[in-house]
Amino acid sequence: MLGLMQEWPLLCHKIIDHAARQHGNREIVSRSVEGPIVRTTYRELRQRALKVAQMLERDGFVLGDRVATLAWNTARHVEAWFGIMGIGAVYHTLNPRLFPDQLAWIMNHAEDKAIFVDLTFVPLLEKIAPSVKSLKKVIVLTDAAHMPETSLPGAVAYEDWLAGADGDFAWRSFDENTAAGMCYTSGTTGDPKGVLYSHRSNVLHAMMAAMPDAMGISSRDSILPVVPMFHANAWGLGQSAPMIGAKLVMPGGKMDGASIYELLDTEKVTFTAAVPTVWLMLLQHLEETGKKLPYLKKVVIGGSACPRVITKKFQENFDVEVIHAWGMTEMSPLGTLGTMKPEYAGLTGDARLDIQEKQGYSPFGVEMKVTDDENRELPWDGKTFGRLKVRGPAIARAYYGGAGTEQFDTEGWFDTGDVAHIDPNGYMQITDRAKDVIKSGGEWISSIDIENLAVGHPDVAEAAVIGVAHPRWDERPLLIVVPKAGKEPSKDDILRFMNGKIAKWWMPDDVAFVSEIPHTATGKIQKTALRERFKAYALPTA
Amino acid sequence: MLGLMQEWPLLCHKIIDHAARQHGNREIVSRSVEGPIVRTTYRELRQRALKVAQMLERDGFVLGDRVATLAWNTARHVEAWFGIMGIGAVYHTLNPRLFPDQLAWIMNHAEDKAIFVDLTFVPLLEKIAPSVKSLKKVIVLTDAAHMPETSLPGAVAYEDWLAGADGDFAWRSFDENTAAGMCYTSGTTGDPKGVLYSHRSNVLHAMMAAMPDAMGISSRDSILPVVPMFHANAWGLGQSAPMIGAKLVMPGGKMDGASIYELLDTEKVTFTAAVPTVWLMLLQHLEETGKKLPYLKKVVIGGSACPRVITKKFQENFDVEVIHAWGMTEMSPLGTLGTMKPEYAGLTGDARLDIQEKQGYSPFGVEMKVTDDENRELPWDGKTFGRLKVRGPAIARAYYGGAGTEQFDTEGWFDTGDVAHIDPNGYMQITDRAKDVIKSGGEWISSIDIENLAVGHPDVAEAAVIGVAHPRWDERPLLIVVPKAGKEPSKDDILRFMNGKIAKWWMPDDVAFVSEIPHTATGKIQKTALRERFKAYALPTA
Repeated sequence: MLGLMQEWPLLCHKIIDHAARQHGNREIVSRSVEGPIVRTTYRELRQRALKVAQMLERDGFVLGDRVATLAWNTARHVEAWFGIMGIGAVYHTLNPRLFPDQLAWIMNHAEDKAIFVDLTFVPLLEKIAPSVKSLKKVIVLTDAAHMPETSLPGAVAYEDWLAGADGDFAWRSFDENTAAGMCYTSGTTGDPKGVLYSHRSNVLHAMMAAMPDAMGISSRDSILPVVPMFHANAWGLGQSAPMIGAKLVMPGGKMDGASIYELLDTEKVTFTAAVPTVWLMLLQHLEETGKKLPYLKKVVIGGSACPRVITKKFQENFDVEVIHAWGMTEMSPLGTLGTMKPEYAGLTGDARLDIQEKQGYSPFGVEMKVTDDENRELPWDGKTFGRLKVRGPAIARAYYGGAGTEQFDTEGWFDTGDVAHIDPNGYMQITDRAKDVIKSGGEWISSIDIENLAVGHPDVAEAAVIGVAHPRWDERPLLIVVPKAGKEPSKDDILRFMNGKIAKWWMPDDVAFVSEIPHTATGKIQKTALRERFKAYALPTA
Repeated sequence: MLGLMQEWPLLCHKIIDHAARQHGNREIVSRSVEGPIVRTTYRELRQRALKVAQMLERDGFVLGDRVATLAWNTARHVEAWFGIMGIGAVYHTLNPRLFPDQLAWIMNHAEDKAIFVDLTFVPLLEKIAPSVKSLKKVIVLTDAAHMPETSLPGAVAYEDWLAGADGDFAWRSFDENTAAGMCYTSGTTGDPKGVLYSHRSNVLHAMMAAMPDAMGISSRDSILPVVPMFHANAWGLGQSAPMIGAKLVMPGGKMDGASIYELLDTEKVTFTAAVPTVWLMLLQHLEETGKKLPYLKKVVIGGSACPRVITKKFQENFDVEVIHAWGMTEMSPLGTLGTMKPEYAGLTGDARLDIQEKQGYSPFGVEMKVTDDENRELPWDGKTFGRLKVRGPAIARAYYGGAGTEQFDTEGWFDTGDVAHIDPNGYMQITDRAKDVIKSGGEWISSIDIENLAVGHPDVAEAAVIGVAHPRWDERPLLIVVPKAGKEPSKDDILRFMNGKIAKWWMPDDVAFVSEIPHTATGKIQKTALRERFKAYALPTA
């Protein structure tokens, strides 16, 4: 027997409708790419999104078409998203930090038909566009006065294009499982893989993200998503903020400490979110200038593990609560958040920081478990680590085009590729990437733990640990070190420093010194390259 | 094109699975019907709910069967809910405050096949059961030691029954639109009408209810739902609390001021919810005893309009934030909540109380509008009142069995039967029931506003206003007054008191004095009876 409740599909345009109706005067403040700070409201933004939808249809785009965006966080980018989704087309965020050939590969794979591009990225797109045969329309997110000379065929200034519409348009209707957005993961190996969000997953994710024990955001917040919309949907904030009617402050292309501080201060930002690097820059700026953060209450930090010192400084020097979070493009992206359960809510000082080094726990809508290589579930004891697997309505069940099928099992679990342990209170901590774990005598050794220890040595600039073949133990850890300029630490120096701080059998069998460690476009250590280079390395213990 | 996100149907048992896994040790504290305070956890509750499900299947109950509950708020009642829903059966909460013949009518209409009944209500059920032919199983929510003598055929003690199961059971799988719960509205006219909630609507409603600008509840809260589970799902708290992992404190059958205070104090309750009457009793108890509320932070008040004095006392004398809310059984039930948007967040004192007299604004997931009799939308100006219509995923699209079709329109809007205005910031205020509005010369007069004014007269115990036929104006208001004992106010006394406080054309054309005003079983004024009695009343102005 079915219930008798209304059919009210979870469609993303209902978010902006709600914002316009219930929070119509709330501001969206953007640092425009042209320079000045510009202001709009949810009511105006919705009206302009309707024009985007109207113009896209007039230009022949239809449900299912992929429409790329190569843009910073601004109100125009948000308008474009809602306009694209409002006709059932699919916004496809492109990460401008990727190499041009990667971007071209991704656009071709997605068969993007149109693109909204910021002024900043016109030169980049000029390099890519000729090799993207599906591309029919280029809209530059600016006005006529700022429109550059460009080799992009038929490129039009956004404001000119939008002026062709009167906004007398109704959102299109379709199933809530219709694709709404797309984002490619930038893995360290292989081709990028496309994640295809649905309207349903976006709406549910926006609700999950706003909940008190997740981001805990309200209409009274002023929210600055420093995390880009092209970085896993700005962690959902582009949809959560209008859903709850919060003020949105968009940083455009400027994410240095001084620029972020200016927005935090003038727009009385209460909530912000970004990767650790951004916060290192901000904290440095604050320390140099002696400035304070009187309005900011909460900062979400994710994208990579948050160093303890950042959490400590925010909380102790600036009275700003830190929420350490973990997620993946495949998860829309939120997976866990380090808000305090009552078991931990009373902790202070180092005890609190210890918990905050973990990535937190999963809200309703994310199931997680850790398993061994035979898919047997491991205990939540805070030390046994295994493959982290997740399940939920805003988690991918496949990649676009069918790549990466090995990451999805028949019971619906997605293998994150991360290795983690979970404590008895449900707090998860990432210990490594599965492919970087060193398998020694059937046991796992976390490369990240050893790296973190090694970089604590005063003469070490950077460190990486990889597994190298060993006749008896299958693999043993090799520590690869870039010494600091002018320093020449010895193998013994470093091993002596590490001794006693990790289990004996985790100690690297050897240390190799190099002048440079290779990185990916997004700054991650390229361990595949290291493994290739040290493939035939002869360990002294072998 | 569809998205590629996981199929993860919104099923209610996922709520208790999440609670058991992520918040397994969190307590559910109940004042048992037998007397003592008893404690369990989400982990144990889930295990017992699995046994309920296992036993229901063993007893032959299947997906779609209606299983009634006639019970107070206790952990056992929550277990029963999740157990029933876990096999796709439908919990059907019965309101013990209804008359026995109404209850029998409802049970027969729903064709309830089984019932979980509290000790308190065994005598009541004994009167009803013989006339409910569908009823096959009676489970008394107690243990063998407390099992009473009863004429109920085959009645079994819950703990004995549960002991037959080992809990080795998996929740059943089904579509998220499967019926999960049922509740009949107790209207002032006509037969009760059944609302049939789905798993999807319950899950979405639980998410909506927990959001920061709705109830704003977290795992750190200790939640006391004084509002009964048989009163519109305890306003969703039976599902929101486990969803977020909050401690639940269940009051059983004792809702007097002293009993509620005891739980608020000993269980360090931070959040509670109930109708105004409960809070009047509590505030009186606090005033008599001089006690304080050091733990309580927030109280949600709804079910009927919250008198200003309650809000004022909670906030000013006890530093407890009041959230005035409005909803309906047909809405799962939340419709609007009076949390503060930034436009109002800075208000204090009377200005704040003025806003808090309104019922608040709708969260994402509830659309609302006010219309005139021709379904033309009216402006949100805070004064133009009209029929309040709502739409959303947790709002009924029909009643069970097809009654009341006139309340649902083709665009999916449900006519609440309330009359309201909405202010420019989206805050709604109920001004009357649509059928009680007096239509005078094409304009609407709110009966409630006049009643509220009239009861302010020192000699008036109770007042009701109805429309009486008028040759020129169609209808004009007649004020019906019950004087206070020993008082004999005159028509002129009362009208003089009211003069200048409402628009001149709203002033009643006459005042009728009566010794008693008829009420429904749930305490509402029975205006139909009054209209019948005064049908032929000759107004002096006619």
